[in-house]
Amino acid sequence: MILFHNDYCEGCHESILARLNLTNMEQTPGYGEDCYCRSAADKIRALCGREDLAVHFLVGGTQANLTVIDAALRPHQGVIGAASAHIHVHETGAVEATGHKVLAVPSTDGKLTASQVEQVVIEQRDSGAQEHMVLPKMVYISNPTELGTLYSLEELENLSAVCKRYGLYLFLDGARLGYGLQARENDVTLKDLARLCDVFYIGGTKVGALFGEAVVIGNLAIGEDFRYLIKQHGGMLAKGRLLGLQFDTLFTDDLYFQIAARANRMADQIRQTLEELNIPLLVPGTTNQIFPILPDWALTVLGKEFTFSEQERVDEKHRAVRFCTSWATTQENTDKLCAALKSVLG
Amino acid sequence: MILFHNDYCEGCHESILARLNLTNMEQTPGYGEDCYCRSAADKIRALCGREDLAVHFLVGGTQANLTVIDAALRPHQGVIGAASAHIHVHETGAVEATGHKVLAVPSTDGKLTASQVEQVVIEQRDSGAQEHMVLPKMVYISNPTELGTLYSLEELENLSAVCKRYGLYLFLDGARLGYGLQARENDVTLKDLARLCDVFYIGGTKVGALFGEAVVIGNLAIGEDFRYLIKQHGGMLAKGRLLGLQFDTLFTDDLYFQIAARANRMADQIRQTLEELNIPLLVPGTTNQIFPILPDWALTVLGKEFTFSEQERVDEKHRAVRFCTSWATTQENTDKLCAALKSVLG
Amino acid sequence: MILFHNDYCEGCHESILARLNLTNMEQTPGYGEDCYCRSAADKIRALCGREDLAVHFLVGGTQANLTVIDAALRPHQGVIGAASAHIHVHETGAVEATGHKVLAVPSTDGKLTASQVEQVVIEQRDSGAQEHMVLPKMVYISNPTELGTLYSLEELENLSAVCKRYGLYLFLDGARLGYGLQARENDVTLKDLARLCDVFYIGGTKVGALFGEAVVIGNLAIGEDFRYLIKQHGGMLAKGRLLGLQFDTLFTDDLYFQIAARANRMADQIRQTLEELNIPLLVPGTTNQIFPILPDWALTVLGKEFTFSEQERVDEKHRAVRFCTSWATTQENTDKLCAALKSVLG
Amino acid sequence: MILFHNDYCEGCHESILARLNLTNMEQTPGYGEDCYCRSAADKIRALCGREDLAVHFLVGGTQANLTVIDAALRPHQGVIGAASAHIHVHETGAVEATGHKVLAVPSTDGKLTASQVEQVVIEQRDSGAQEHMVLPKMVYISNPTELGTLYSLEELENLSAVCKRYGLYLFLDGARLGYGLQARENDVTLKDLARLCDVFYIGGTKVGALFGEAVVIGNLAIGEDFRYLIKQHGGMLAKGRLLGLQFDTLFTDDLYFQIAARANRMADQIRQTLEELNIPLLVPGTTNQIFPILPDWALTVLGKEFTFSEQERVDEKHRAVRFCTSWATTQENTDKLCAALKSVLG
Repeated sequence: MILFHNDYCEGCHESILARLNLTNMEQTPGYGEDCYCRSAADKIRALCGREDLAVHFLVGGTQANLTVIDAALRPHQGVIGAASAHIHVHETGAVEATGHKVLAVPSTDGKLTASQVEQVVIEQRDSGAQEHMVLPKMVYISNPTELGTLYSLEELENLSAVCKRYGLYLFLDGARLGYGLQARENDVTLKDLARLCDVFYIGGTKVGALFGEAVVIGNLAIGEDFRYLIKQHGGMLAKGRLLGLQFDTLFTDDLYFQIAARANRMADQIRQTLEELNIPLLVPGTTNQIFPILPDWALTVLGKEFTFSEQERVDEKHRAVRFCTSWATTQENTDKLCAALKSVLG
Repeated sequence: MILFHNDYCEGCHESILARLNLTNMEQTPGYGEDCYCRSAADKIRALCGREDLAVHFLVGGTQANLTVIDAALRPHQGVIGAASAHIHVHETGAVEATGHKVLAVPSTDGKLTASQVEQVVIEQRDSGAQEHMVLPKMVYISNPTELGTLYSLEELENLSAVCKRYGLYLFLDGARLGYGLQARENDVTLKDLARLCDVFYIGGTKVGALFGEAVVIGNLAIGEDFRYLIKQHGGMLAKGRLLGLQFDTLFTDDLYFQIAARANRMADQIRQTLEELNIPLLVPGTTNQIFPILPDWALTVLGKEFTFSEQERVDEKHRAVRFCTSWATTQENTDKLCAALKSVLG
Repeated sequence: MILFHNDYCEGCHESILARLNLTNMEQTPGYGEDCYCRSAADKIRALCGREDLAVHFLVGGTQANLTVIDAALRPHQGVIGAASAHIHVHETGAVEATGHKVLAVPSTDGKLTASQVEQVVIEQRDSGAQEHMVLPKMVYISNPTELGTLYSLEELENLSAVCKRYGLYLFLDGARLGYGLQARENDVTLKDLARLCDVFYIGGTKVGALFGEAVVIGNLAIGEDFRYLIKQHGGMLAKGRLLGLQFDTLFTDDLYFQIAARANRMADQIRQTLEELNIPLLVPGTTNQIFPILPDWALTVLGKEFTFSEQERVDEKHRAVRFCTSWATTQENTDKLCAALKSVLG
Repeated sequence: MILFHNDYCEGCHESILARLNLTNMEQTPGYGEDCYCRSAADKIRALCGREDLAVHFLVGGTQANLTVIDAALRPHQGVIGAASAHIHVHETGAVEATGHKVLAVPSTDGKLTASQVEQVVIEQRDSGAQEHMVLPKMVYISNPTELGTLYSLEELENLSAVCKRYGLYLFLDGARLGYGLQARENDVTLKDLARLCDVFYIGGTKVGALFGEAVVIGNLAIGEDFRYLIKQHGGMLAKGRLLGLQFDTLFTDDLYFQIAARANRMADQIRQTLEELNIPLLVPGTTNQIFPILPDWALTVLGKEFTFSEQERVDEKHRAVRFCTSWATTQENTDKLCAALKSVLG
């Protein structure tokens, strides 16, 4: 079987592995207070163009989400997110387990608009029922979204503006950020994110690392005592250097960006094949996730050789599924998938 | 001003007040372990036709909801409710504050159907993402609903059956239960509730008491150590007898049912007036809540003499609002409201 | 049986009952936004000598404690309390249920000293383990304590100073505050509390009310959005006026202070009897709680006519128990208890 | 500097690193549903002599502790632990953040006795205050303890028996289990643990792995839906195979036991040197942790070349500190430390 159902099927990029080998028996302080974490944080701050950013390295995305949100909110405050938001659907209620409600907003493309945010604030805060309703205090977006779509710079500017107007934090989940930043249609930079978001994270797990997410905090109200929050939620890695070393490697010689760009090119090849076959997509995209709508019989055939993940049933005979490329996807496997698509559907 | 915006504007029924006066200087044990609580619980068990029910008296509805739900669920489990459910919209995230997600289902009449429940279970539990999604374990309904609608016995039977099939608890919020049980269209009895629900409560705050909700638990898995849960959530009243005495009075000589029936009749008079004036209702109903859709200008005029609560904007010039009658509504005030409606809208 | 085991065996003071009768059918807005709550809050602010205080009325002590603490602390912060503190021992982990640790300090008289607080801060915050340990952010004291002891003004000044030095909030649980303020040895006033504490509450449940605690907040960091916290924790009484009316009555014509002083005098009579009988006390005191150490056989005899609560076993043949007087204790019952003590132990 | 302050200063054992290299580009399913996790779990079940055990791999110790405890307890239940327990002192209130109280028991050697457990149960459960006190439901012990001491088989049998008698779960934190099992004085086996504990974990982070703890659950009441709990607390590693592969390697050819035994021998050399120098230990021990009491001046000198961790001040001129060996400690560094001790203190 060739696995295309997600972007975390393999280990890590060879450069990371090489450095793990090289540094294995070095002695360092624990809990992220080592030279590798410092170096990685410095590189991220430089790329973001802000010396005052706090950078923390966590093991995974759900952990990052719940820790950031819990650090930011008082008990009665909630976080606005799209109905398809990972925190709303696929984290087993991790945010609620910290005591906070996700205020879900319908969305067909996985994105939130500034006017949707404004509407939620007005409904929750200004309806007269006030203290009987959860007070919105944070906006959660993912970029790329769970559907592989991207926010434009203008959309982010608008979201940031509405957040500032209503005193909300803007939090961007960048579990697949590399693929977003390197997408053809993207016009957003790390510097933009550092300027527009109160907090965001740069995903490593899905972009070349064994594991790890780099949480970048620009707003002191969220960042204060953040290490306590990490520890309390069980996210403080004893050998924290493993996280630092991985991000230090990813942000050396643009590795992070190169491997993401390469994965997008592989995805483009698959998208082109689908287009040639007149296969519709559930949502268009230019990142590493592809959501074709395919007949059940074809999926049965393809499923004998390739894995993909189920997205949703579209009609009685068709389902939308997801194929992912990643930093690790080979040209060979991409060619095999394209050939199979042509063979089955051509 | 004459207040019609809710059903808790006055104190309590005169029979309760009389007994409070009579018993004031009696000495009793605290925390609900007194003779009045025992007597009230016995009367409720008799009305429900089950000797094995646990009955606990809590001060208010949000407190009852959060305590019951927290007692019933393990951390990863959630509660299914209509999108308009009080626990989802108007309790400041009280359920989430205990760590649990409300799985909200769209509904236009405030009710859940058995097939909606089944669909949520299938989506959450059988989608293949399993442990990444909150596990539904309880169904929360209110009867009457927040929109004054009622479940028929058949609907409750169906809900109960689907809950049993999937191992879910059925929890009925009866904050306005008296008005529901006495409504013209109602075909449900306390015995039915005791048979079909794992837990429900009988509202006192809105039906003649100063405060108080009687939580009736038929399922031992929820009832075990329930007093610990009450205490932990700050709901254990030192002078618990105040609760017992009120419910004992309400369930003496059918007082609870008589005062609820009377409030429904007052509401019927208002509904009839609205019908004569061809005023549409947001939702039809036969309980103490009425949701007419009225022009803004008329609400401005009515608002000078009467209070009502805002429900939702219907179009640019019309809003749905809520008028409530209660056990305390006088014929005089009802007549005044009806006259004003005719005068303004006739 | 004559009940002396606690100070909440009866209903409420006759003046409160009279006003409940008088106002029963008045219509008022709900949730504490009525004229009685406003009036009571104004009276409390005047007694405290600070116009800027926020005053909220809650139903009970555990509810007040958990709501205040949850409002004040971020997730990683804890509250320092004596090992005998009500929040540590007798609230079923209500504080922990909001996510916060109680940092318990050994104490023989139920009190905390400024130097104990300082020591905890240094251990927790400056040990080098920092983010691995709960960060102390609040000090909880009760006055009178659970052992009936009192803080002197000097002790409170010292506690307040150490809290200010280390950025901690000072929170005083005044469930029995009236008895403390009226005790012979007391040198503390409400104005002192308003000046020295960030937040405290004035107990009504044990001092003449049916129920109710008046939370007085001087520090905006705790008070912000406090009504949301009340609602979320199920503590927002629909008919909030019941709380306002009770406190308004208690703070009219010094009623609160007079009834507390009277209870202390009853307790003094019992203490004097015990002294005459050479019965040792577990801790000395001048409030409404008395903790004699008595032989088991005598307790068996007394227990046939009077209730008392168990405090602790002192040796194989002796236990410390608690007798409470209250605003409701009659001279007749006090005389009976004194006579019985003399008869059994004389 | 040579680091002796903890046992997680280096990366991982070379055998693990070799397999990480070897398997890096293999494609596997995520979230621990891969062949390496299955194989590792099988090996652990075989060593434990029970086919019915559930085995889950988590990243770290605090994560394991909070997930296990939250999975096991209902909201009002608490966990009994020694006052020195890691969960009580050094996890930033992680257990309390899940809503549960740690019921701390004084202990000088880091251990709990069966009679202490019984006493807590009696005090909490049978004092008459019942539902006002946290209900003990689990006993947490660490073995080796935070002070390097060990439970004998008899002590564990007694603890298990008292837990069974009172319906408590027995949970053993084995963050350093390897060092304990291989200690000279140890008479406990994995089979014993699987028989006597409801749940325990085998630490990898401190015994040869980059990270990872293997949670072994014998009691279905704790194990049910455990993967949901892992996910909700942010502990489900996307590339779960990293955990499986490490434990599979550690339990191949007794690697886990051999490297732990070697670390203990290094520690013995240091202990012997201290004994020859007549340096007292805070607590005796035979595992990889050593707690000498040394004069401040000597620690200043040693601190220039070696790291150690602070344990506690013993008197004005002496502190107890901790030296740790680990699977990675070299003979060369051990010799250097022994030589320095002799040179400074001889």
